[in-house]
Amino acid sequence: MDIHALTKELHTKSDSKIVMLVADGLGGLPMAPGGKTELEAANTPNLDAAATKGCLGRTIPVAPGITPGSGPGHLGLFGYDPVQYLIGRGALEATGIGFELTDKDVAIRCNFCTLDANGNIADRRAGRIPTEESAPIVERLRAIKIDGVEIFCEPVKEHRFVVVFRGEGLGGNVADTDPQATGVPPLDPVAHDEASQKTAKVAKQFLRQAREMLKDQPKANFHTMRGFAEKPALPSYEEVYGLKAAAIAVYPMYKGLARLVGMDIVGAAQTLDEQITLLEENWDGYDFFFVHFKYTDSTGEDGNFDARVKKIEEFDAVVPRVLALKPTVLIVTGDHSTPALLKSHSWHAVPTLLLSDCCRSDDCESFGENAARRGELGQIEAKYLMPLALANAGRLGKFGA
Amino acid sequence: MDIHALTKELHTKSDSKIVMLVADGLGGLPMAPGGKTELEAANTPNLDAAATKGCLGRTIPVAPGITPGSGPGHLGLFGYDPVQYLIGRGALEATGIGFELTDKDVAIRCNFCTLDANGNIADRRAGRIPTEESAPIVERLRAIKIDGVEIFCEPVKEHRFVVVFRGEGLGGNVADTDPQATGVPPLDPVAHDEASQKTAKVAKQFLRQAREMLKDQPKANFHTMRGFAEKPALPSYEEVYGLKAAAIAVYPMYKGLARLVGMDIVGAAQTLDEQITLLEENWDGYDFFFVHFKYTDSTGEDGNFDARVKKIEEFDAVVPRVLALKPTVLIVTGDHSTPALLKSHSWHAVPTLLLSDCCRSDDCESFGENAARRGELGQIEAKYLMPLALANAGRLGKFGA
Repeated sequence: MDIHALTKELHTKSDSKIVMLVADGLGGLPMAPGGKTELEAANTPNLDAAATKGCLGRTIPVAPGITPGSGPGHLGLFGYDPVQYLIGRGALEATGIGFELTDKDVAIRCNFCTLDANGNIADRRAGRIPTEESAPIVERLRAIKIDGVEIFCEPVKEHRFVVVFRGEGLGGNVADTDPQATGVPPLDPVAHDEASQKTAKVAKQFLRQAREMLKDQPKANFHTMRGFAEKPALPSYEEVYGLKAAAIAVYPMYKGLARLVGMDIVGAAQTLDEQITLLEENWDGYDFFFVHFKYTDSTGEDGNFDARVKKIEEFDAVVPRVLALKPTVLIVTGDHSTPALLKSHSWHAVPTLLLSDCCRSDDCESFGENAARRGELGQIEAKYLMPLALANAGRLGKFGA
Repeated sequence: MDIHALTKELHTKSDSKIVMLVADGLGGLPMAPGGKTELEAANTPNLDAAATKGCLGRTIPVAPGITPGSGPGHLGLFGYDPVQYLIGRGALEATGIGFELTDKDVAIRCNFCTLDANGNIADRRAGRIPTEESAPIVERLRAIKIDGVEIFCEPVKEHRFVVVFRGEGLGGNVADTDPQATGVPPLDPVAHDEASQKTAKVAKQFLRQAREMLKDQPKANFHTMRGFAEKPALPSYEEVYGLKAAAIAVYPMYKGLARLVGMDIVGAAQTLDEQITLLEENWDGYDFFFVHFKYTDSTGEDGNFDARVKKIEEFDAVVPRVLALKPTVLIVTGDHSTPALLKSHSWHAVPTLLLSDCCRSDDCESFGENAARRGELGQIEAKYLMPLALANAGRLGKFGA
């Protein structure tokens, strides 16, 4: 269902406030059969109190069985169908380093590679050259000039960097130049449609100049280009929900994702406490606040159950400061599960909490995977959280007479 | 959602094994208010133990309120949207008798009928002539020859039989010749599109020869043709899931449905025990096994609650042999409900069990309709079972970065 077709028509203005606290990768698993999940093992008196007053449910990020990356995971939470709205790889990589894409941009993921004397690829990752060595080489590529386009070259990590072409008439439909094999030469950038001919031509010129510039490098003597992508055309929060929205995140990826849906990026917090201070300071300026907490995911990726429990407790500890602001609607959720048991993102449903004065409380008295199964919200696709938030905030009119 | 668009891109290889045990028509109803369903009344220690370790849920075969036939019911379990992928009536009838359709075939359901002296239909079913009488007549129709096509005439039951035309350029879009009324003549086969002109022409010639051949029969002196259908274009299990799949079924219909999605039909078991022996013998050769048990449905159709309970207990008894093979993922479900109370297929949600090492166990300790409501899988469309199976088997990569 295209839920935005409804919310666009039905949203109304009000002075209500919505806070969405996202603990990345929140859902978990027990380490042994019959045990507790991370969220259940954690001591979370504040979330439990909120669960008692509010209601719980389980969100499916994309579809049952589908494990999302951060992009689709957050698009779902933001209410955008994550299958309909795909973020191209290049655009996601640029977003991830905080590069602000415009409608005139094509972003490209680049890998330094090593060519042998015959011009064939000997190493597709240039020996995973460390960032300290690769970043200065990327900066040297900024000397490349091509008529009719502005060019940005941004280091990412090790052999990876991003190139952005900015100009008129640049389509994103260009094939990768990485042949995904060694012993063969890199491919030419080939446009897959008419609108991307200029992009392919610019890419070819860029590669020619880069090859000349890099030829004396011991390892990174060339680079490939992959995931050509325009800025995804996402309608803004203002357009689909009538919300002035602020994002309070530490990591560039999540700021970038929020920016793609038209949220303002607020401040430059480095800790969760600083994030909540920013929430307090900006309370009057916005209708909606997205607060992102990374470490419930990274500790899961590390497979560290106990560290994840601690991070959940740290997350729980700021809840009173949030509630002191008296948000009309508080949502606490994750963009997917990251069970320490699996050391990776997973497909499992995400425990989700919604608190408002009119949310129909259930009999759940703690915030956890088991309790959430009995919750009022049931099991829903994550993209329905935003219409629920709007409804609970009194910001959604009646559909039909 | 087109879930195959995702699974096609995301599936990966592994040496994991998935077993899907389908008890046909598994879901039931109590015979009196407040009573137990057939599954709840049955003594199923093995399924209960699996429910305790694994997780439960409820599957909706097509949509709430929609009662599926065997075709859509199984397509849903196989992960194919049963509304998107329709199996034409002729193709289903041919499949049901074990006829192996090719891409060059058009299959047609035929009914013997009785014409009066004026050539009008007096009986649309030729007095439901018994199979012993009708089968030899169908065999005589095999003498019909038409240039440019190969013809197959196969008895089904009583007045029903199947005709298949095999050749180049045969479309399936031809109108029924059954006028659905008596006292009027049968209709001519009329093509509804250009691609089906040849089929209509062949059908007309077939009917002319059949009329001549049958004219002296006392009852079955002609036949109608209905449900013209090509082999449905279903992408294979290999294509959409990367799975080498085996079907172990007793009845031709279920072998046929499995064959349509590219499963290998393994052996010729006549009992459930023989089916499990085939599972054991073929364990190393396949990634996925579909095991079909018919009698939970047929006892429901008979309205025999107690017999259905016994069949469920017989089904339960083989579970230890399946688990002894250590499948990575075991799914136990049905293609729809067939409550003895209703003596027919029904729309009710189907209790479903999934067992794997990473399935997030719930607090369900028995396998039944009531318990399943509290299950981790929630209530999902049946077509999502396959992505869940792949995810639990470690065979599905991450969607998006």
